[in-house]
Order: sequence, then structure tokens, then C-alpha cells
Amino acid sequence: MFNHFDEQGQAIMVDVSGKTCTLRTATAQARVLLKPATLAAILEGSVAKGDVLGVARLAGIAAAKKTPDLIPLSHPLAIHHAAIEFRHDPATGELRIEATVRAFERTGVEMEAMTAASVAALTVYDMCKGSDKSIAIAEVVLMFKEGGKSGTYRRGES
Amino acid sequence: MFNHFDEQGQAIMVDVSGKTCTLRTATAQARVLLKPATLAAILEGSVAKGDVLGVARLAGIAAAKKTPDLIPLSHPLAIHHAAIEFRHDPATGELRIEATVRAFERTGVEMEAMTAASVAALTVYDMCKGSDKSIAIAEVVLMFKEGGKSGTYRRGES
Amino acid sequence: MFNHFDEQGQAIMVDVSGKTCTLRTATAQARVLLKPATLAAILEGSVAKGDVLGVARLAGIAAAKKTPDLIPLSHPLAIHHAAIEFRHDPATGELRIEATVRAFERTGVEMEAMTAASVAALTVYDMCKGSDKSIAIAEVVLMFKEGGKSGTYRRGES
Amino acid sequence: MFNHFDEQGQAIMVDVSGKTCTLRTATAQARVLLKPATLAAILEGSVAKGDVLGVARLAGIAAAKKTPDLIPLSHPLAIHHAAIEFRHDPATGELRIEATVRAFERTGVEMEAMTAASVAALTVYDMCKGSDKSIAIAEVVLMFKEGGKSGTYRRGES
Amino acid sequence: MFNHFDEQGQAIMVDVSGKTCTLRTATAQARVLLKPATLAAILEGSVAKGDVLGVARLAGIAAAKKTPDLIPLSHPLAIHHAAIEFRHDPATGELRIEATVRAFERTGVEMEAMTAASVAALTVYDMCKGSDKSIAIAEVVLMFKEGGKSGTYRRGES
Amino acid sequence: MFNHFDEQGQAIMVDVSGKTCTLRTATAQARVLLKPATLAAILEGSVAKGDVLGVARLAGIAAAKKTPDLIPLSHPLAIHHAAIEFRHDPATGELRIEATVRAFERTGVEMEAMTAASVAALTVYDMCKGSDKSIAIAEVVLMFKEGGKSGTYRRGES
Repeated sequence: MFNHFDEQGQAIMVDVSGKTCTLRTATAQARVLLKPATLAAILEGSVAKGDVLGVARLAGIAAAKKTPDLIPLSHPLAIHHAAIEFRHDPATGELRIEATVRAFERTGVEMEAMTAASVAALTVYDMCKGSDKSIAIAEVVLMFKEGGKSGTYRRGES
Repeated sequence: MFNHFDEQGQAIMVDVSGKTCTLRTATAQARVLLKPATLAAILEGSVAKGDVLGVARLAGIAAAKKTPDLIPLSHPLAIHHAAIEFRHDPATGELRIEATVRAFERTGVEMEAMTAASVAALTVYDMCKGSDKSIAIAEVVLMFKEGGKSGTYRRGES
Repeated sequence: MFNHFDEQGQAIMVDVSGKTCTLRTATAQARVLLKPATLAAILEGSVAKGDVLGVARLAGIAAAKKTPDLIPLSHPLAIHHAAIEFRHDPATGELRIEATVRAFERTGVEMEAMTAASVAALTVYDMCKGSDKSIAIAEVVLMFKEGGKSGTYRRGES
Repeated sequence: MFNHFDEQGQAIMVDVSGKTCTLRTATAQARVLLKPATLAAILEGSVAKGDVLGVARLAGIAAAKKTPDLIPLSHPLAIHHAAIEFRHDPATGELRIEATVRAFERTGVEMEAMTAASVAALTVYDMCKGSDKSIAIAEVVLMFKEGGKSGTYRRGES
Repeated sequence: MFNHFDEQGQAIMVDVSGKTCTLRTATAQARVLLKPATLAAILEGSVAKGDVLGVARLAGIAAAKKTPDLIPLSHPLAIHHAAIEFRHDPATGELRIEATVRAFERTGVEMEAMTAASVAALTVYDMCKGSDKSIAIAEVVLMFKEGGKSGTYRRGES
Repeated sequence: MFNHFDEQGQAIMVDVSGKTCTLRTATAQARVLLKPATLAAILEGSVAKGDVLGVARLAGIAAAKKTPDLIPLSHPLAIHHAAIEFRHDPATGELRIEATVRAFERTGVEMEAMTAASVAALTVYDMCKGSDKSIAIAEVVLMFKEGGKSGTYRRGES
């Protein structure tokens, strides 16, 4: 069931040396729940008071590169693209962080996208926790994945 | 509003050199939503098929040490304790990851606890994504914080 | 003459365990020479086309934290403050990057400030090299140092 | 103008997944201005009092490998060659550090060469600052670049 | 004699850009000498008192990925497989750690295997030193290597 | 028996926040077995053909700083001193590497010394493996430890 373990139940970095390189893309999403006033301050802030989203975006992109160092059994990958998009709902205070990663590699880039979205969300938390410690990272999920043998995955489609 | 920026809105690592060291503790929680069958396999697996939770625990503790490298404006901290607890609900498939960090320092350890819980959750996702890509990290929140000038925080108490 | 070597000429990390912690500050400056048009685009860009200086500032602050990993015989230090200021001369195209680091430590933070200024300058180069590869980092120097036994240093005062 | 930002001015790691791997070479140069007496001591020292240039060389090569971790929007690259050459002028006290990096990759290695030269220069500063804090890194520039679509670049040729 | 130096005796990262990628495998072995009672406790412990070998295995796999950061003149490699096996002799207290690494690369993976075995052994030492500081890492050697121009190597065959 | 696990056998970073800082020293030794001709070449080489021991020394000192990143449950420590000494026996080809680390800290620096000695030995192996793959790291042991509650340890004294 868990392909990071061998038949004796021992953790391994799975052998992918025999796999062919293909173009892999993955998109993950993290949702952060803020007070509407905090979200409003973030959105204004990018101009005058400090660019919370700019800092979080760079943290997410840098984290995508650090994935092999964070996720113990993941393979070192040379990613070829990383981007972070923000969307928001001023009424509810929800901030959506979408991280997309691409690489021409032997294995998928889901963990790179999930890690980028998570660390961008953690960075938003870090910058806003002075005014509100109760901010929640409400969800981190894989939205889309393409390019491997298991085919295309799109969240919500079964 | 955002204390990681100066008056011109420029990102800074806030000066804490004048603050006194006190004993700081923080606990964060991440909830992972699995299919009940996947959760059951994880719980059995620790004995026979591979220790998913053992790997996630080490990833979380290691991540606590990497926090200054991941969160751009956080201070380098020498943490003095880190632990990860797991709780689960076999009926719903929910796995709760609780990360606690402690340090005698000039600034709080909330980000270390939040990062440890997040990376432990990401590692669970990594190990289980082969059988289920739809697993969600359902929430990452700060549960408890103690030891700084802003006093004790306990989630749910206002 | 070189205090990073012992009497046999062997490289060492000098023993500072017997020194007392004092408050240390250091400021370093890097100057980057751009075409006036490139500098103008950077200054406008922070609003509309991309925040070159914002990215460089974060790179510099992060680099200050990585100093012990970059400079072989430097001591690991827990820095308590890091900030990057930019000044510019639209006529000449010169961009001045000033990095200030502070820590309550047994040894000085000059290398942290020098490294922060250098990496911020390298990041400006990285972002502008697409339009002009001839950009020069014109100078990296220590401007100010305070807090150690050797007293206060101010560049230009002998 | 700045190709590290998308049309909305958002920082991205540019997508290079569609580019072909070619052999890339880059050479960067840093000049360090020392007192002639300090330079003389460095040159003698390599035999008897401590090998300043040997330490700086290793720091530069190691830094080339760390470039993706230092320069926020740079791509992770597997470099295939790195070397550092020193030249000096005993009369003026100038030390020239030339870093060359090569890789068979989708994107150039200029930043790896610039980073290697800068960190080698910072390491020279670190080792000599005990006797002279006024040492200046006088210039860091790209000297040569070959192998990408933009053709060969040689500093000084327009 | 030492191919990490050029003709002037200067340390370099050897140029491998002209070499072809081939499938490389290396296996290294570390032997740890414990008191039989300590070894017995480790073997029982994996179930009830703490999984020493599980922690050491993850440390070894993670260390294989960090090799380019630890060994100054080694090339950055994207390894495709890493695994750690343990064997033991209850009578003598000897624990044998065998690390295997594989990659499709221009250069061999001996250092990755040697580093993985060493760090796994150091981690066993770390976890047992509370009860016995005299534990020795008795040997770290390359057992097997395959895939490069120098052909297959098997320890003990001359 | 293993103090890196709690009562449920779960891996933790032990809480040392209540301990007092004291001056800690540790010395570890690694022995490398070379062919006498290889050792002779190393010893000459430091002048003319390349400084194997100089490279290994820097690798060991750098590794001491990376210990918290390599040993999963170790505490992040700010070490205050690190040095590597080499001794050799021309007749047998044995090279002895002695690493000493010191810090004013809440916990011991044994792992920093053991890691420094191991990585210096691995680096010697890396530089000599081109001429002799059968080189063995013959032993890595703790020689001396001082400064904690458990008192002074000296290898060979029971």
C-alpha cells in the first residue's frame, strides 16, 4: 500500500533509475482563513505597509527547491518552473494560495507543489500572527497533476 | 499591523536583541483526512508494513530545526525540545498531528511548531499519495503558546 | 597575522568560548552600477512590473542567516536583527545596498552584514542580467562595526 | 524588462522545461583590494602561516553548489565543473579571483560563477579582517558566458 | 595521483560535462561495535522502546542527498535510489549497516553510499551514547561499485 | 536505555531547556588506512600536488556546523571552537584524524566531534579513491568528553 517501504516494511527511496523522464506538472492549493480586516490590510499593504504576499510568494518558491531536504524519502529533483498565485475573498477573509511546479523528470512534482503552498501559507501566518494568532491554514490539497504513468489527476473528479 | 515591516513598508528581521530570554513553548496541530482504510493500514503498518508515522515524526522534528531557513523573516533559534504526537479517529479517518517545541529564547517558537506540524503532515501525504492523491491536510493551527510578553494563548479561548 | 590559523598554519574555528556576549552591530555596503534606464525600470517596477528590490532584500536577509554555512571558519551565530536599505542615484544608475545586522554574541557580525549585502547585490544582478549582462557589483565594504573588544570601526576614519 | 516576473509583476521561477540542454560555461571575476603587506603575507602564508587562498577556493566552489539556495528565483542546477583561479599584483595589493563554472543544462551558469567569485572574496575578507577591516571587494563582474541562445558574451566587447 | 587537483595542485571540481550518463550503483558498509546487551535492546526496541534502526535508516538516506554539501569537491547528483540494510551478530554485538545508492549520472555514487553508511552509523552512536560512550564505528568501506569507465569494483577482489 | 525516545518509544528531541549552560569539550578520532605510497603522496602533496589534508580539515570543520542537520534528534548548537589535527604513521599508511569541538551549551558536543572526524575521513577517501578504492575508514571513536553532568570521559579508562 505504501510504496516508500520495501517488502520488509523498511523505508527506502524508491528506485526510479529505470523510469523515463517526462514533463511533470503539479498544482497544490492552500487556503488561509483570516479576519476580513487582516486580509484587507494585506491587500492594501502590498503598496504601502509591506508586501505580505510578495514575501510569502518567495518563501513558497524557495521551499519548492528545498523539498528533497524536507520530505525524507523524496527524490532530489531539478525543478524547471515554480509559480505562486493568490486569490482572495474580501467578504470571508479567505486567501487561496495556488502553487504550480513543473519539471522534466523521472518522478512527479506533487510534493514540491504541496510544500510550496504550505510554506507560503506558513509565511502568511508568520507575518500576521502579531495581530491575530488564531489564523488557520484551512486546507492544503493537491489540485492537479499531469505527466506520469498514473495519468492526469484533477481534484474533485473521481 | 504587520511587525515584520518597518515604517516604510520594508521587510525586516525585527530587532530582538534588547529582549530577555524566557522559556517559550508552542504547540501546533495539523489534521490529515484519510480514507479510514488508509488510516487503518498506517496504524497496522507501524509494525509490519512500514512505519509511516515514525517517518513523519522525524520529518517534523527535523523541520522544526529548519524553520529559520524556510520562513524568510524568522529569527535563527536554538530550540531545546521538539516532540510530535499522533492521535486518530478510526471511524472518520482523521489523523491529528500535534507538534510541541520549547526554547529559552528572545522570541516565540510558534513558527517552529507550525512548521513541524505542517511538514509531518506533508510527509504523511507523501507516503500515502500512491494509493490516494485526494488526501487533504485539513487544518494547521496554533493550539497553545506560552512564555512571551503577549502572555499565554490557548486556541478557542478568546 | 591571520587569526583563523593556528601556529602551525592550520585552519581552525577560533575558540571564542571564553569571550563574553556583548551587543554587536555591523553595517556593510554594496554598490551596483546599472544603466540609468535599468535603474529607472527597477524603481518603477516595484509597483507595476515586479519588485526587484523586494526580492533582493529578502535574499540578503536570508543570506545573513546562511553565513556560517558559506564562510568556512565563521562561527554559527543566532542573529537578532537584519535589515537592508537601498539608496540610488538616478543620474549615474548607481544603486547602494546597505545591510545591517545585530546580535548579542561572543563574536562580531561583520561577515553576516558583508554576506547579506553581497547576496542582495547578486540577486539584483540575477534579475537584471536578461537586459544587461555588463552590470557590475562595484564595491562591497564594511561601513561600521561596534560592540567587540577592538572597539568601533567606521570606514574612512583611520 | 525583468524576466523573473510575469505580466502582473509577480516573481516566478521562469519555466525552462521546454528548453534543450546545451553546454554552458560562465566566468566571473572578483577583485579584492588589500594592503600590499597583507597580500604579501597571504602569498607567503600558503606555505607556512596558513593557506588563505586554499580556504577561499573551497568556499567559492562550495558556494557555486549553493547558488539555488541563495538566489531566490534561480533554477536548481547540477553543475559539472567549478574552478577558482587567483592572480595578484604585489605592487598594488590587488587580488583577482576568477571563478569558472560549467554545466550541461537548460539555463545559464552565470549566477553560479558570480556567487562563487563573491563568496571566495568574502572568505578572503573574513580571514584578513583581523588585521585590516578596510579591505574592499572592489568589483564583481561577469567576464564570459557561452552556450545559451543569447550567444557568447565577453566583458568589454559590446 | 589525486584527480581533485589540477596541474598546479589547486583543488577543483573536476569537469565531467563531457562524460555520458550511465547507470551507477555503489554499496558501502559501516560496522558498529556495541555491547551485546545494547544490540539486544536495539533489536527489541524497534517494537516497544524506540526504533533506533528506523531513525538511523532515515538519517542515512537523508545524508545521501546531502553529500554534495558535505564533501567539498563532489558533484551535485540527483540520486534515483537509496536504501539501508542492517545485519547483526547478537553474540559479538556487531551491527552492519549497508547503504546502496543508484543514479543515472556522469559520475559515480561511491561518496553518496559512503556518506549514507557513515551518518547512519553516527546516528546509532548518538542514540546509544547515553548508555555507552565507548561504542566504536569499527569500519566504513566501499563494498561494490558499478557503472563507470573504471568498471566494476568488489571489495576483496583485487 | 535510549534517551532519545519517550516512554511510548516515540522519537523526541529531549527537552534540555531546564539545563544550565556549561563549557563542553569533545574530541573524536577517525583512523584512515591508506597504502603507504598514497599516504606519502598526501604528505608531499600539501606543498606541490594538492593539499588533501587542507581540504579534509575544512570539510570536517564545516561538518561540525551541520551536525544538527545530519543527526535527526540532535539539538541545534552554536559551537564556539572546532579544530582538526592529523597524525600519521608512514610505515603502516595510517592517518589519524582528531577533531575537537567546544561550546558553552546545555548539551554535549560529542556528535559534533564525531561528525567532524567522520566527514574529514570521508573527504580523504573522496580525494584518494581515484587511485585506491579499497581505502578503509578503520575506526571512528569518541576519545574525550568533558563538561556535562555525566563527568569526564576518556576512552580506555573504564
